[in-house]
Amino acid sequence: MASDRNPQVAGLAPFAGFNAKIPFATGPEANGDRKILPDLEEAIRRTGLKDGMTVSFHHAFREGDKVINLVVETLARMGFKDLTLAPSSLLGINAAIIPNIQSGVIRKLFTSGLRGKLGEAISNGLMDEPVTFHSHGGRVALIEQGEIEIDVAFLGVSACDPFGNANGVSGRSWCGSLGYAMVDAMYADKVVMLTEEIVPFPNNPASIRQDQVDWIVQVEEVGDPAKISVGAARATTNPRELLIAKLCAEVMEHAGYFEDGFSMQTGTGGSSTATSRFLEHRMRAKGIKAGWALGGQTGGMVDLHEKGLIGTLVDTQSFDAVAARSLQANASHMEISTQFYASPLSKGATVDRLDMVILSALEIDLNFNVNVLTGSDGVVRGAIGGHADTAAGANLSIVVGPLLRTRIPTVVEQVTTRVTPGETVGVLVTEHGIAVNPNRPDVAERLKAAGLPVKPIGDLYQRAISLSGKPEPLEFLDNVVGHVRYRDGTIIDTVRQIAP
Amino acid sequence: MASDRNPQVAGLAPFAGFNAKIPFATGPEANGDRKILPDLEEAIRRTGLKDGMTVSFHHAFREGDKVINLVVETLARMGFKDLTLAPSSLLGINAAIIPNIQSGVIRKLFTSGLRGKLGEAISNGLMDEPVTFHSHGGRVALIEQGEIEIDVAFLGVSACDPFGNANGVSGRSWCGSLGYAMVDAMYADKVVMLTEEIVPFPNNPASIRQDQVDWIVQVEEVGDPAKISVGAARATTNPRELLIAKLCAEVMEHAGYFEDGFSMQTGTGGSSTATSRFLEHRMRAKGIKAGWALGGQTGGMVDLHEKGLIGTLVDTQSFDAVAARSLQANASHMEISTQFYASPLSKGATVDRLDMVILSALEIDLNFNVNVLTGSDGVVRGAIGGHADTAAGANLSIVVGPLLRTRIPTVVEQVTTRVTPGETVGVLVTEHGIAVNPNRPDVAERLKAAGLPVKPIGDLYQRAISLSGKPEPLEFLDNVVGHVRYRDGTIIDTVRQIAP
Repeated sequence: MASDRNPQVAGLAPFAGFNAKIPFATGPEANGDRKILPDLEEAIRRTGLKDGMTVSFHHAFREGDKVINLVVETLARMGFKDLTLAPSSLLGINAAIIPNIQSGVIRKLFTSGLRGKLGEAISNGLMDEPVTFHSHGGRVALIEQGEIEIDVAFLGVSACDPFGNANGVSGRSWCGSLGYAMVDAMYADKVVMLTEEIVPFPNNPASIRQDQVDWIVQVEEVGDPAKISVGAARATTNPRELLIAKLCAEVMEHAGYFEDGFSMQTGTGGSSTATSRFLEHRMRAKGIKAGWALGGQTGGMVDLHEKGLIGTLVDTQSFDAVAARSLQANASHMEISTQFYASPLSKGATVDRLDMVILSALEIDLNFNVNVLTGSDGVVRGAIGGHADTAAGANLSIVVGPLLRTRIPTVVEQVTTRVTPGETVGVLVTEHGIAVNPNRPDVAERLKAAGLPVKPIGDLYQRAISLSGKPEPLEFLDNVVGHVRYRDGTIIDTVRQIAP
Repeated sequence: MASDRNPQVAGLAPFAGFNAKIPFATGPEANGDRKILPDLEEAIRRTGLKDGMTVSFHHAFREGDKVINLVVETLARMGFKDLTLAPSSLLGINAAIIPNIQSGVIRKLFTSGLRGKLGEAISNGLMDEPVTFHSHGGRVALIEQGEIEIDVAFLGVSACDPFGNANGVSGRSWCGSLGYAMVDAMYADKVVMLTEEIVPFPNNPASIRQDQVDWIVQVEEVGDPAKISVGAARATTNPRELLIAKLCAEVMEHAGYFEDGFSMQTGTGGSSTATSRFLEHRMRAKGIKAGWALGGQTGGMVDLHEKGLIGTLVDTQSFDAVAARSLQANASHMEISTQFYASPLSKGATVDRLDMVILSALEIDLNFNVNVLTGSDGVVRGAIGGHADTAAGANLSIVVGPLLRTRIPTVVEQVTTRVTPGETVGVLVTEHGIAVNPNRPDVAERLKAAGLPVKPIGDLYQRAISLSGKPEPLEFLDNVVGHVRYRDGTIIDTVRQIAP
């Protein structure tokens, strides 16, 4: 028999057998199903997670999420301490983690927002360290810059194959786009998939890819798709919201960007999502269609797409079942990560190409600064989302909102919390009229020429306080409970503990 | 007017304006078309490329490629020196770079293989430094480990949009899967797209994504798709190759892996690609279908897929126009990167899940070691490709080849160059019979039971030299012209300069 050569080259290790240096080449782990583990605890042990490390999650199931609470509970049971939680966002459902913050399992928190009891608890001083609030694009930038170093990402999906290939439109509980999870899969050191079902290899498309996934655990439920559209993402039938939506569509028509191939994002507030309904006849009348629509996708956008009025749906989050179904069915419904969507450090953030974005506001002030994070009582009850990202990137950002909410003005002298800087906000649409940022005289001129009720924002403010009275200034303690980070990582505001 | 807050938090820079820290937020570069440059020289300047750096390319257009030579020529004209060239592979067409090696523009070379005059020149001592030969999976591992640090990737595509989103199935010159290029886009510091066409945003699917692309240059031609199937990827009508293919199909049927849902890769040699034709009636007779087929995809595989006999085509390279068209048209034709395909350091390499792979050989020796790199004259005239990767990963690797090529034996005492270690090769199929690696007695037993002509490989060797005479040993100089790297980075053989 011929003997094999053993070439000696300085600086290079000699070949020592096909499986000498390659993991999984032989032995029990060569099995193609090696990633599948019997339970979550075993998966956590295999990741090598330690006290003080950072774990992450996506929030595509929103109020229907069943992964974040389950994993945190398991980590608590296993005795972990001082963890940093870095989900893409948290919602009302996540109030369940409060005891685990109190007991020190979770020490630090990054999130796009907070709602419900968790927001209240944090506003009342629950945590020792201030929460970091970021935008969707800003989160990716914090990851890219290393401020968020994800040690283990726990990603819930309806189905994946035995190697971890996953999308949000197979199996039973579809969340649609995995835009948030794609970033975690890209950057996390270890990735654990929690899946309702294991489907045959290869699961295609692979929004999360096998070369990003370490371990797979089958669980009963990862989320309830019916609860994705609860809260912020609801569709509206409120007449005032519909009126604002109609006015907003008129602004879109006349502001200078309503040309064939234009692009838009309509956001998730009641008025925002309703706006899409009012665009249809305007597009038909002018004989134009939108090139693409960005962001959280809704049934309204899908409807326009399927009618041929929007070329491509560019989807970072599917806000309802119709959007998820469309992602599965429509070739021009494109799934993108939040890095592709909005990261200011990305080589190409889609928000930079956007013509118009419709945004909501809890408060907007005389400098057009917008607050979407804290309520008029100073309690955190919202999320930054893509607000600051799209406002900065779009050619025109349009904030829509009622002048008053249950006798509390939306237009204020100074926002309680500055999330989106006024210099990036172009227009405010309320049911009492439209205000245009003085830095956009071109837009003001066009809207006036179209006969729209353009007023100084100060007039809207005066109108608001004439109806409600001037609100008393809020009282806060000195204790800072939240850092509001602009998408570039700078600190744009702080959130303080509310006075008892 | 309300004054904005300027929160001071230790360690965090204060907000200083929406565009203070974000590139492209304002100014001329805020334009969505900022990546498009007038010519290649300008793009090269913008990348900051310096002497001694590493540039990379994909070779999906194979003999039809028009990017590698063009870029190297441009780099030479601009005066660059001592560059490392790290394309996924080089072919006959790339003989054009010889003068730029001679003049010192290119100092170092990584490639899967060499053909034609470039292979001859290098075998005759053209370069001062040995060429590094790697497998497709091994290349990704060299990149992941930092031995190949791609400073600038120049990626040719038929079409991309103004932000760089690209695939190989839009525009005019389709190469199909961008499996090689996807890795370069993922790991390169700077990415320059060379495109024949700029199509409206967003180009979907985005096999190469906007968040990976720095610059875009429009060029007349990036490649001639008609020449993709020239050479190794040709379809055969040779009766001997067809005979081997038929015998190979019988081996596949009886070796123990021909069960419903099996997976396979059929490679690119004449016999390999022909094998797919012989599988059809065997699959129908047994009432089974393949779950998926991996690797370079051909019209033969597409035919089986469209007949419902292969579930998913998992495509890292499209070897002909039929395969490219299928990638565009068939939802279950899946585009994957070479990291997903074969990297031994990947969290999941598809080769590890493969049942059977059909491989070619220039030489195979008594220890089943295979040479696909150097000819019987010792000159480099082949490529490692996925050979060593799939042989290591598959449950059964089947090498097919004629016993003699123009009176030169394929079965030899010892291969001229060891590329794939014999321990990973299961079966050899020639027109004179079948040899089974002694490390696979299970397979030998099954094939014998099926009445197939199984013989010791020594018998095939004796048969070969009885027909051709024992070849004289080749004469080499001491000068090493190539390092053959196994997929794990170790050195498995060297290639020496041929004697004049």
